[in-house]
Amino acid sequence: MPRVGIVMGSDSDLPVMRSAAEVLDRFGVEYETVISSAHRLPDETAEYARRAEERGLQVIIAGAGGAAHLPGVLAASTVLPVIGVPIRTGALSGVDSLYSIVQMPKGIPVATVGVDAAANAALLAVAILAGGDAGLRQGLKEYRRGLAAEVRAKNARLQQLGVSGYLAGEGEKR
Amino acid sequence: MPRVGIVMGSDSDLPVMRSAAEVLDRFGVEYETVISSAHRLPDETAEYARRAEERGLQVIIAGAGGAAHLPGVLAASTVLPVIGVPIRTGALSGVDSLYSIVQMPKGIPVATVGVDAAANAALLAVAILAGGDAGLRQGLKEYRRGLAAEVRAKNARLQQLGVSGYLAGEGEKR
Amino acid sequence: MPRVGIVMGSDSDLPVMRSAAEVLDRFGVEYETVISSAHRLPDETAEYARRAEERGLQVIIAGAGGAAHLPGVLAASTVLPVIGVPIRTGALSGVDSLYSIVQMPKGIPVATVGVDAAANAALLAVAILAGGDAGLRQGLKEYRRGLAAEVRAKNARLQQLGVSGYLAGEGEKR
Amino acid sequence: MPRVGIVMGSDSDLPVMRSAAEVLDRFGVEYETVISSAHRLPDETAEYARRAEERGLQVIIAGAGGAAHLPGVLAASTVLPVIGVPIRTGALSGVDSLYSIVQMPKGIPVATVGVDAAANAALLAVAILAGGDAGLRQGLKEYRRGLAAEVRAKNARLQQLGVSGYLAGEGEKR
Amino acid sequence: MPRVGIVMGSDSDLPVMRSAAEVLDRFGVEYETVISSAHRLPDETAEYARRAEERGLQVIIAGAGGAAHLPGVLAASTVLPVIGVPIRTGALSGVDSLYSIVQMPKGIPVATVGVDAAANAALLAVAILAGGDAGLRQGLKEYRRGLAAEVRAKNARLQQLGVSGYLAGEGEKR
Amino acid sequence: MPRVGIVMGSDSDLPVMRSAAEVLDRFGVEYETVISSAHRLPDETAEYARRAEERGLQVIIAGAGGAAHLPGVLAASTVLPVIGVPIRTGALSGVDSLYSIVQMPKGIPVATVGVDAAANAALLAVAILAGGDAGLRQGLKEYRRGLAAEVRAKNARLQQLGVSGYLAGEGEKR
Amino acid sequence: MPRVGIVMGSDSDLPVMRSAAEVLDRFGVEYETVISSAHRLPDETAEYARRAEERGLQVIIAGAGGAAHLPGVLAASTVLPVIGVPIRTGALSGVDSLYSIVQMPKGIPVATVGVDAAANAALLAVAILAGGDAGLRQGLKEYRRGLAAEVRAKNARLQQLGVSGYLAGEGEKR
Amino acid sequence: MPRVGIVMGSDSDLPVMRSAAEVLDRFGVEYETVISSAHRLPDETAEYARRAEERGLQVIIAGAGGAAHLPGVLAASTVLPVIGVPIRTGALSGVDSLYSIVQMPKGIPVATVGVDAAANAALLAVAILAGGDAGLRQGLKEYRRGLAAEVRAKNARLQQLGVSGYLAGEGEKR
Repeated sequence: MPRVGIVMGSDSDLPVMRSAAEVLDRFGVEYETVISSAHRLPDETAEYARRAEERGLQVIIAGAGGAAHLPGVLAASTVLPVIGVPIRTGALSGVDSLYSIVQMPKGIPVATVGVDAAANAALLAVAILAGGDAGLRQGLKEYRRGLAAEVRAKNARLQQLGVSGYLAGEGEKR
Repeated sequence: MPRVGIVMGSDSDLPVMRSAAEVLDRFGVEYETVISSAHRLPDETAEYARRAEERGLQVIIAGAGGAAHLPGVLAASTVLPVIGVPIRTGALSGVDSLYSIVQMPKGIPVATVGVDAAANAALLAVAILAGGDAGLRQGLKEYRRGLAAEVRAKNARLQQLGVSGYLAGEGEKR
Repeated sequence: MPRVGIVMGSDSDLPVMRSAAEVLDRFGVEYETVISSAHRLPDETAEYARRAEERGLQVIIAGAGGAAHLPGVLAASTVLPVIGVPIRTGALSGVDSLYSIVQMPKGIPVATVGVDAAANAALLAVAILAGGDAGLRQGLKEYRRGLAAEVRAKNARLQQLGVSGYLAGEGEKR
Repeated sequence: MPRVGIVMGSDSDLPVMRSAAEVLDRFGVEYETVISSAHRLPDETAEYARRAEERGLQVIIAGAGGAAHLPGVLAASTVLPVIGVPIRTGALSGVDSLYSIVQMPKGIPVATVGVDAAANAALLAVAILAGGDAGLRQGLKEYRRGLAAEVRAKNARLQQLGVSGYLAGEGEKR
Repeated sequence: MPRVGIVMGSDSDLPVMRSAAEVLDRFGVEYETVISSAHRLPDETAEYARRAEERGLQVIIAGAGGAAHLPGVLAASTVLPVIGVPIRTGALSGVDSLYSIVQMPKGIPVATVGVDAAANAALLAVAILAGGDAGLRQGLKEYRRGLAAEVRAKNARLQQLGVSGYLAGEGEKR
Repeated sequence: MPRVGIVMGSDSDLPVMRSAAEVLDRFGVEYETVISSAHRLPDETAEYARRAEERGLQVIIAGAGGAAHLPGVLAASTVLPVIGVPIRTGALSGVDSLYSIVQMPKGIPVATVGVDAAANAALLAVAILAGGDAGLRQGLKEYRRGLAAEVRAKNARLQQLGVSGYLAGEGEKR
Repeated sequence: MPRVGIVMGSDSDLPVMRSAAEVLDRFGVEYETVISSAHRLPDETAEYARRAEERGLQVIIAGAGGAAHLPGVLAASTVLPVIGVPIRTGALSGVDSLYSIVQMPKGIPVATVGVDAAANAALLAVAILAGGDAGLRQGLKEYRRGLAAEVRAKNARLQQLGVSGYLAGEGEKR
Repeated sequence: MPRVGIVMGSDSDLPVMRSAAEVLDRFGVEYETVISSAHRLPDETAEYARRAEERGLQVIIAGAGGAAHLPGVLAASTVLPVIGVPIRTGALSGVDSLYSIVQMPKGIPVATVGVDAAANAALLAVAILAGGDAGLRQGLKEYRRGLAAEVRAKNARLQQLGVSGYLAGEGEKR
């Protein structure tokens, strides 16, 4: 039974939102991935949010671009925490998405992450779930240790190879 | 029976949105004024839009600020023309409202006017209604002639009084 | 006899504005497509707007970029509804076009849609025409049902294939 | 024992952040209010975050303005969910605060709410805690019903008094 | 016979545009001050520009705010140099005015000065006229010497009084 | 003897600024093209401006990007009209250049054109020179007629070929 | 003999720039305060920078607003470190000042601090001087300890009085 | 023993930050290059700053993008001068990085340079070190003379080849 719903307004958001799915896979958190649309499918979108709690969802992650109403529309119909991912757009580069998601009126918050930051949205979902799940909390700490180890390893490599050597090595990897 | 619905997300938008009502009064267009909220009253807001056509509404004007979802949420549940008025906000000064209203996805347009431009929203509504109402079209032409006459009168006054005299006169009026 | 005039300031706007033509074709609405320029051909542009009503036009769609005066200049010489499409530009990315179109003075509104959103401009024109044309209103409802069906189909496909399968399928299509 | 830590970088943020405290009071959630500073008290700030979990905190709310590092610095030293409140600033009006808080790197999310939206930060904290606290979830639903009732009451009043009457009444209240 | 036309779209621009008149007075350059409007009085505005040259005008200064089309619309109907003054607006603070004036298409330039910089517009007009008027060029050099002397005098006063003394003196002046 | 100086801060601005040279060539206006730098060659840059008038220059066009001080620094040392061309930059896309050029202090104007609008800068220079040169004024009128004819020809072609035919033809040209 | 030059383009910058003087007073660093202007007094401004080193200055702090060329113009004529303070302006709120100061071309850096952050400019000057002055370095450490103590004291007061008590006390102080 | 620490939050910043290393190489200033991360490695980052002075570092250069906390976090734990390099990002193009670095609170300045301006950061570091190192000061003057000579050489080449010739030559070089 999925604990997290990953919702997006269009399949064009899927290449960004898949990072959320990958993070949840890594932490072993069950999720579902849904294409819905606040504007093209308004009733089903509201219905999804209204039924989320009874279906066992604990957190909703919603990605949208432009007049990015999806996270706010979902938040309006559920009291579950809703995390919004502003998707980078063409002309306005995601500033439109960010403002449309983060500037919610008093009473109905959306937990907003950075532009295209779907992985961080999933990590935030894990942190929320971890409040009642010691295993996830432990997992998050290990994940953090992994991040730290990765930075240390890169730094060690830089100390060993120097700037030019490091960049040459990066070039080879590609 | 109202032909235009003026909807706003909060009564704090009323001082701006009243200009729309005043313009419709002037043109003798019946309207209703409604406080609803895309986020605090999502079902009734959608229901309002779904029933608008059968209730005889022909145009909806919606004002909202911040993550200003109201016009788009209404547009999602009706095929009537929806005109959006971005309300000026505190920190982001209405740029957030403008982007949230104008950048609608393909398929669901909102006819957006300038920040706080509720009077222009009403004039646009009149222009839309005028397509089937020769009296309104005539009224719009008279309104335009009035605007032109007003500018000409101000200019005549400026030619007569000069810059200082004109500004002194303005000061006295206050 | 065309009911909608699609006007653009330069033939470089044509690849964007063609979407407006395609939408009108789909709805069986007659239109004309015109290259004019508020700055390079000011008298003919004003004349176009002044004569629009008598020529039977009911809505004007105008696309322009940069100091995008075309929609406003047309609106100044007609009381028909004018819909403005801000075209994305180089350095300022269409924010200049958007501000130049949407921030019209009191008295002369332009119904503004999103940056490059020519298809939405045409849908708005159809919604305006539909006020006096039950067939168009029906057509809009079918169009909306089509949008909804498309989202549902994509979601069904996502449920069937999963994220990776879906994205792999997208890759193959290209 | 406090479940939520409300942290702010300066006592000048207190008039904004008190709204978070008021919301938590209303929901009966214990909290502590702390002035710390990512830049003036870096070690104690990090220590606060490192010890937060063992001290029984479940969520941290952090408000900061300008180069608003406080939420991110706290998030770097705890795996608890951190909610960031961008405080409105002078020259850049809170856009600086918003960007500094929301654009966190991959791995360390901050759940960002709107500029000065401390009440929404607290509601988000309640929603997070409600995952393991049926009473809070019930409380949130009542709070939402209250919001809806408030909008309905305002609308009823508007229908009764009309626009002018409503605004006159507002004037009297002041 | 006026050599410079100072045109503005509304009498609300007069307090800003009067600085242009004051500078021209100081240089003894004849000018006229005109309220016209690109949108409310389009034909007369175009006519003004078309007849400007034959009426003996040599430069046009045009101030406008919001979708500030006036300078561009004048420039479209004359080959005289047109100087645009973006007027500061409410919500968008004059960024809208600036973009609407400066981003003119290829072929029809507008010489843009800073937001509300009507005095600089007049100085630019004087510099243009000075190309054929040795007295004006001499006047500009004296004006510059005056500016320099003023800065030197302020600096001398600061050296004499120190920071606190200088600011105390400023306070007394008020 | 050159009448116009085209100055740029770096040879990387040359591909943009060459359009100014091409326009002046077309009008038969003599000019010189100079690479100088307000920051790397401050004394020679100031000297260039100080000596411009005695060398017979009548207008200076200056292009610069980023902290684009060149036009303002030149304007500080001459009373000739200085036209500024904001060059598009990497990260800030020319908004930095535009603000650095247009927002000059009272007393020292720079006539600013659009981002990368070097051709318009040259047309403005021609319009300034045309004040004392009937041939240039005539040339400008012909240039305008040429622009108008070009738009008319494109529109005629569009009427003949239709949207698809026109775009297909454009494709072939490339 | 002054070690730091505090330069500003106008006496209107003095209320902001005095904070720099106050910080240097506190650290016992000798300085001079100068009103100069990159545009109104270009030669003397350049001369000031050219002679700064031989006059014994070690750091220059320059504040300017709008097209804020002063810091860059000074930096062009000296190899001493130049610290730029963007002054908040009217319409563009200091974003213009910030971009004009920070985006210097390769080769001529300006050390930029926040909008109106004159005190921080002075602290940076002290940090630079402290490289060769153990007393100043010690002073900086004490200053930091003072900042930390101040935050700790405010927090202690908050713990004692609670949010309402603290804010009531603040109110009394005023 | 390194005198300058070049720190970056991620190895993806290395292609930009290497320019700082190259400048320091040219001036013969010893430095170290370190990958650390304010968020992924908070304790070691703070420890790096705390130990910087005793390890003999005199200046720290820190590059970071997005919510670019690294320079500020380092500055919070050392009184050495910290120079911040805002790295260009995807969606927000480095405006986020710039605001996050430059808008530091009173008491803890970061000397900010332009977006991606790592070479200028290094030149600023050299200028700071040059306060106690006559050789470096001499080196900076030579560097400036080199910059000037380079501009002069490019200008000479332009005078010789003309615009087309120059650009053709540039094309060949590529």
